[in-house]
Amino acid sequence: MSDIPGYALLGDVNTPQDLRSLPPEQLPALAVELRRYLIETLGRIGGHFAASLGTIELALALHRVFDTPNDRLIWDVGHQALPHKLLTGRRTRLETLNRKGGLAPFLMRAESQYDAFGAGHSSTSISAALGMAVAAKLAGENRRAIAVIGDGGLTAGMAYEALNHAGQLGLDLTVVLNDNGMSISPNVGALNERPSLAPFFETLGFAYQGPIDGHSLSALIPALEKLKDARGPQLLHVKTVKGKGFAAAERDSIKYHRVTGFDPVTGALPAGKSAAPSYTQIFSDWLCDAAEKNPKLVAVTPAMREGSGLGEFARRFPDRYLDAGIAEQHAVTLAAGLACEGFHPVVATYSTFFQRAYDQIIHDVAVQNLPVLFALDRGGLVGPDGATHHGAFDFSFLRCIPNLVVMAPSDEADCRRMLATGLAHSGPSAVRYPRGSGPGAQVSRDLETLPIGKARVVREARGHRKPRVAILAFGALVQTALEAAELLDATVVDMRFVKPLDVALILDLARENDLLVTLEDNVIAGGAGSGVNEVLASHQQHVAVMNLGLPDQFIEHGTREELLVQCSLDCAGIQRAIQKRLRAKDLSEKERFPVAS
Amino acid sequence: MSDIPGYALLGDVNTPQDLRSLPPEQLPALAVELRRYLIETLGRIGGHFAASLGTIELALALHRVFDTPNDRLIWDVGHQALPHKLLTGRRTRLETLNRKGGLAPFLMRAESQYDAFGAGHSSTSISAALGMAVAAKLAGENRRAIAVIGDGGLTAGMAYEALNHAGQLGLDLTVVLNDNGMSISPNVGALNERPSLAPFFETLGFAYQGPIDGHSLSALIPALEKLKDARGPQLLHVKTVKGKGFAAAERDSIKYHRVTGFDPVTGALPAGKSAAPSYTQIFSDWLCDAAEKNPKLVAVTPAMREGSGLGEFARRFPDRYLDAGIAEQHAVTLAAGLACEGFHPVVATYSTFFQRAYDQIIHDVAVQNLPVLFALDRGGLVGPDGATHHGAFDFSFLRCIPNLVVMAPSDEADCRRMLATGLAHSGPSAVRYPRGSGPGAQVSRDLETLPIGKARVVREARGHRKPRVAILAFGALVQTALEAAELLDATVVDMRFVKPLDVALILDLARENDLLVTLEDNVIAGGAGSGVNEVLASHQQHVAVMNLGLPDQFIEHGTREELLVQCSLDCAGIQRAIQKRLRAKDLSEKERFPVAS
Repeated sequence: MSDIPGYALLGDVNTPQDLRSLPPEQLPALAVELRRYLIETLGRIGGHFAASLGTIELALALHRVFDTPNDRLIWDVGHQALPHKLLTGRRTRLETLNRKGGLAPFLMRAESQYDAFGAGHSSTSISAALGMAVAAKLAGENRRAIAVIGDGGLTAGMAYEALNHAGQLGLDLTVVLNDNGMSISPNVGALNERPSLAPFFETLGFAYQGPIDGHSLSALIPALEKLKDARGPQLLHVKTVKGKGFAAAERDSIKYHRVTGFDPVTGALPAGKSAAPSYTQIFSDWLCDAAEKNPKLVAVTPAMREGSGLGEFARRFPDRYLDAGIAEQHAVTLAAGLACEGFHPVVATYSTFFQRAYDQIIHDVAVQNLPVLFALDRGGLVGPDGATHHGAFDFSFLRCIPNLVVMAPSDEADCRRMLATGLAHSGPSAVRYPRGSGPGAQVSRDLETLPIGKARVVREARGHRKPRVAILAFGALVQTALEAAELLDATVVDMRFVKPLDVALILDLARENDLLVTLEDNVIAGGAGSGVNEVLASHQQHVAVMNLGLPDQFIEHGTREELLVQCSLDCAGIQRAIQKRLRAKDLSEKERFPVAS
Repeated sequence: MSDIPGYALLGDVNTPQDLRSLPPEQLPALAVELRRYLIETLGRIGGHFAASLGTIELALALHRVFDTPNDRLIWDVGHQALPHKLLTGRRTRLETLNRKGGLAPFLMRAESQYDAFGAGHSSTSISAALGMAVAAKLAGENRRAIAVIGDGGLTAGMAYEALNHAGQLGLDLTVVLNDNGMSISPNVGALNERPSLAPFFETLGFAYQGPIDGHSLSALIPALEKLKDARGPQLLHVKTVKGKGFAAAERDSIKYHRVTGFDPVTGALPAGKSAAPSYTQIFSDWLCDAAEKNPKLVAVTPAMREGSGLGEFARRFPDRYLDAGIAEQHAVTLAAGLACEGFHPVVATYSTFFQRAYDQIIHDVAVQNLPVLFALDRGGLVGPDGATHHGAFDFSFLRCIPNLVVMAPSDEADCRRMLATGLAHSGPSAVRYPRGSGPGAQVSRDLETLPIGKARVVREARGHRKPRVAILAFGALVQTALEAAELLDATVVDMRFVKPLDVALILDLARENDLLVTLEDNVIAGGAGSGVNEVLASHQQHVAVMNLGLPDQFIEHGTREELLVQCSLDCAGIQRAIQKRLRAKDLSEKERFPVAS
C-alpha cells in the first residue's frame, strides 16, 4: 500500500527491486507520479530542477532493466539525478535536499550504494565507468558499467579521452547520451549541430544506437534490454527535453535549471530579491562597460554564460563572446591565443571549475606572461552545492604561479576596480569573488583601477588596548573582520591582493602589533595567510601570527552562513579564536620580541 | 653562397623568405641537407631527436607555402620543431640547444617571431590557433592560423575540445595532423586504429584531406597550396615516420625520441652509465615487486610508459597496465573508478603533467577519499626541458588538498618505502621524486612501509655552536642539506612527509633551535616550508624561520646543477643564505623568545 496520499504507486517503490517487481503496465503511471512528486517538492524547497524532469523515464528504465547496484550506474554531473535518488530509497528525504545534514545536491558514494560514483563537476562518468569495467574484467565479475552523460558533458575533453580509450579496450561498457541540446545554456560545438552522431561514435569504437525518445518507456526499455547482454562498448543516444512535463520549465529551461522554489501549478518563480546586486551582476555590468570602451576585450566562458553573468555581454557583443563548451582547458588556451594577438580576453567561470584548466593557466598563460584576466565567481564557500563546488583552494593553487596577480574584493566597488585593474594589467591576473551579494557598496560606473599590490587599512585600532591586534583579511571576510574587530579594537586591513602582497604594510603591521591574524575563506594550507607568514619569515619579523581560514577537510553542503559558522569564520567564531589566542602565555606575559630594524 | 662546408643550400637559407626564393627543384636537396645537419648536430649534442626527423619535409613545405610569420604557424609540444628552428634563423645556434642561455628545448615566443605560440606540453596548438583565428577575424586581418598536431597529441581531450569549437565557429583554420603512430611509445586509442579518420573530423565540422605522404614535398606542397585559400576549418592528414631517414631511429624511435648523443654514422648510442639507478628505475622495480605481491595493483599512465618507467610492468603485467593516451584527466578518473571497486591504482607521470589532472585529483579522488597512488616523477627542477617542465609547483598545489598524503624521498630506499606506504594507505597519496639518480642508497627488495607523518633526524648538531640551526629539508635537497650542515653544525631533518607534517618534531625543533631553515625544490609560495610556518603559527611557537626554495619566477633550461646554483639551492648557496641570516640582529643579539610550553 502506498504511504503517501495521492500517490498510488510511488509509496511502494522504495528500491529498484520494488520497481522491478511492478507489472510493466504500471510504469507509465509511476513516471507520472515521479514527475508530480518532483514538481511539488522542488516547487517548495528549490534546487536543480529542469534536468531531472528530463531523466524520469530514463532513470526508471535503467533501474528497471539493469541490476543496480550490482551493475554500476554512473550519472554525470548530478544535475539530473533526482529521479535516481527517488527510486533508490531517498524519496522521503528529498525534503532535506541541499540542506546541511540532508541529501547531497549531486551524487555521493557515502549517501547511497546506488551512487556508484560521486559527481558534481561534469564529464567524469565515462572515465569512472571504464575504470569499473576494467575492474569487473580483472575480478572476473559479470557486471555492467553504465554511464549517463549529457550532450553538454560531451563537449568536455575528458569525455572524449574516455571514449577513445574505451573504444580501444573493447570492454563491455554502456554509455547513454542524454541529449537535450542544453548545457545550462544551449549546448555548443560542431558535434551538437550534426544530424547524425553515428560516424563519430563508430570511429571511436562504439556500437551506436539511436536516437530514441527518452520519454517513451516503450522505446527505452527494449533498447536497454538489448544492450544488457551486448558485448563491447555501446552508445545509446536518447533524446530528452529539459524540463519535460512542466510547461514553464520546458519553455525556459535556463530559468528552471536551478530554482529557489516556484508555484507548482503556474510555474511562477518568486520575485527577484531587492537586495544588493550579486557579485555576478557586478561582473556582468563591468564587463559590458569595459567592452564598450575597450574593443580588444573578448569574453570566453566554458559553458557558464548564465552562472557567470555573461548573458548581457553575449547579447550586446556577440562577436566578442565565445562559449567554449564545458571545456575549461581549451577555453584558457583559446584565450592565450587571443592574447598573443593583442586582445585582452576575460575568462569567466566558477572558481572550482578553474581547477580543470590549471595546467593551461600555468603553461599557456603564465609562462608566456599573457594578459588574460580570470574572473573566478563562487570563490570560497558556495553553500548548498557542497563539497565538489566550494572555491576553497584557489588562493593556494593560484598564488604559487609566477607572473599571476591574484585579487579578492571585499565589496562590490572593489570588485569592479579589481576587474578594471586586471584588464589594464600587461600580464595575467585573477579576480576571485564569492557567491551571492556583498555588503551593498555604492558602485560607480567608471573604470577606476587600483595600484597593484597595495592593501588598505579599513579600521584603525583606537590603540589603548594591549595586546595590539591587526586582522589582515582577504576578500569577502573583510566585512566579517570589521564586525569582529569592534569587540577587540583590532586594526583591520583589506589586503585586496593575495599576490603580490603588500609587503611594506605587512612589515609595518608586524612592528606595530602584538598579534597578526590572517583571515580568508580559502584553506589555510598554502592560502593567502601562508603568504603573509612567508613575508614575515623572509623579512625576519617576529610577531605572533594566527592563520584563520578553512580547515583541511572537505566541507559538505549547507547554507553559506551555516558553513561559515561550522568553520568558525563567522564574527563570533573569529572573536572566539582571537580571544583564545590573546590569553596565550606568549602574548599575555611577553616582553615585546626583538625585531630587526 | 653557402656558409657551411658540405652544405650547398642550407647556409643560404636563414629565413623562410630565403626558402621561398629557392627554385622548387632545389627543395628536395635542402631537405636532405636539413636531415643531415640534424643528425650530425644532435648526434653530438643530444636532445629530442626522432620526432624532428619526421617533420623535415613538413616544416619545409609549411614555410614555403604559408607567409610566416604573418601567417601563424603553431607546432604542438615542440618535440618535432627542430626543422622549424633551423629554417627560422636559428641554425647557427642549434649547438646551444637545451643549454643554459641557449636555444630552448621547445617553442618559445621570446626566442623567435616564428614561434607563434610557446609549447612544451602537448595538445594546446589547436586552441591557440583558434584563438588567433578569432583574433584575425575580429581585427579584419587576412592571415591564416595553422596548427600542427601529432596523432599522440590528438588523444588529449583539449585537442578535441578545440576541434569541436572550431568546427562550430567555421573560421579559416588549418590543422595538420602529423600522424606517425607514436606518442613517445606507440600511440593508443580507438581513433588510432581506424582506417579512415574522415568521418570523425567531418562530424566535427572540418573538411578532411588525406592521408598524404608527409615525406613527399610533391605531395605536401600542392596540398598546402590548396588549403591556403580554402575557407573554414581544414584538416590535412599527413603520414610521417618518426626517425625518418636515420635507420637506427626508424627501427626504434622510442630509443631515439630523446638522446644524449649518438654516432651519426652507425647510430650507436652511448653505453648506459654505471651510476646509481634513476628514481624512475626505483619506481619501476618497486612497481613490479609490489604487483607480484598485490593482485589489486593496477598501473595507469597518460602515455608516459617510457619516461615513467612502466615498460617492464607493461611487459610482465599487461592486463593490469593501462595507457590512457595523453589524457591525464581521464587517467586519474579511470583510476578513481578502479579504486571504487577495490583495486589500488598507481598513476604515473611527470609532476608537471599532473597539473592537467588537478581537478580530477581533487574532485574524483580526494573528495571520495579513494586509495589512488600518484607517482610524480620529475619533481623539482628538471634541467634541460626548461620552464614548461619543471615540477616546481606540486607541493603547493597538492598539499592544500584534504585527505591527500604527500611524500618526497631523500634517497632511493626511501622512495621505495614511500611508494609502498602509499599503496598500503587507505586514501589517496602522492610520492614525488626528482629526475635522474639519487645519492645511491642501498635499496632492499622488501616492501617496508613508513609511519605516515613521521620525519627523521638525519644529522644531530654537535650542539656547541650558537645560534643553533636546524634544517628541515624535503625530498632531494636533504642530501644538499647534509653537505651544507657540516660547515654550520646544523641539525638536519629529512621531513619525508609534506603532508601530514610531523608536527611534534617541528615543535621540538622550534624549542631546541634558534633558527629553523626549511628547504625544498618547490616554489616557496605555498610550498612545504610554508606548511612548517603554518604549524609554528598554529602552535604559537616563536622561532626564527627561513624558507628556502625556488623563487617566484619561471626558470629556463640548463642543467639541473646549474639551475640549482642559479636558485641558490646548491650547497654553497644554502650555506650563504643561512650564514647571512645568522648575522641578522634578531639572532645574534637576541635573548631567547618566550615560548608557550
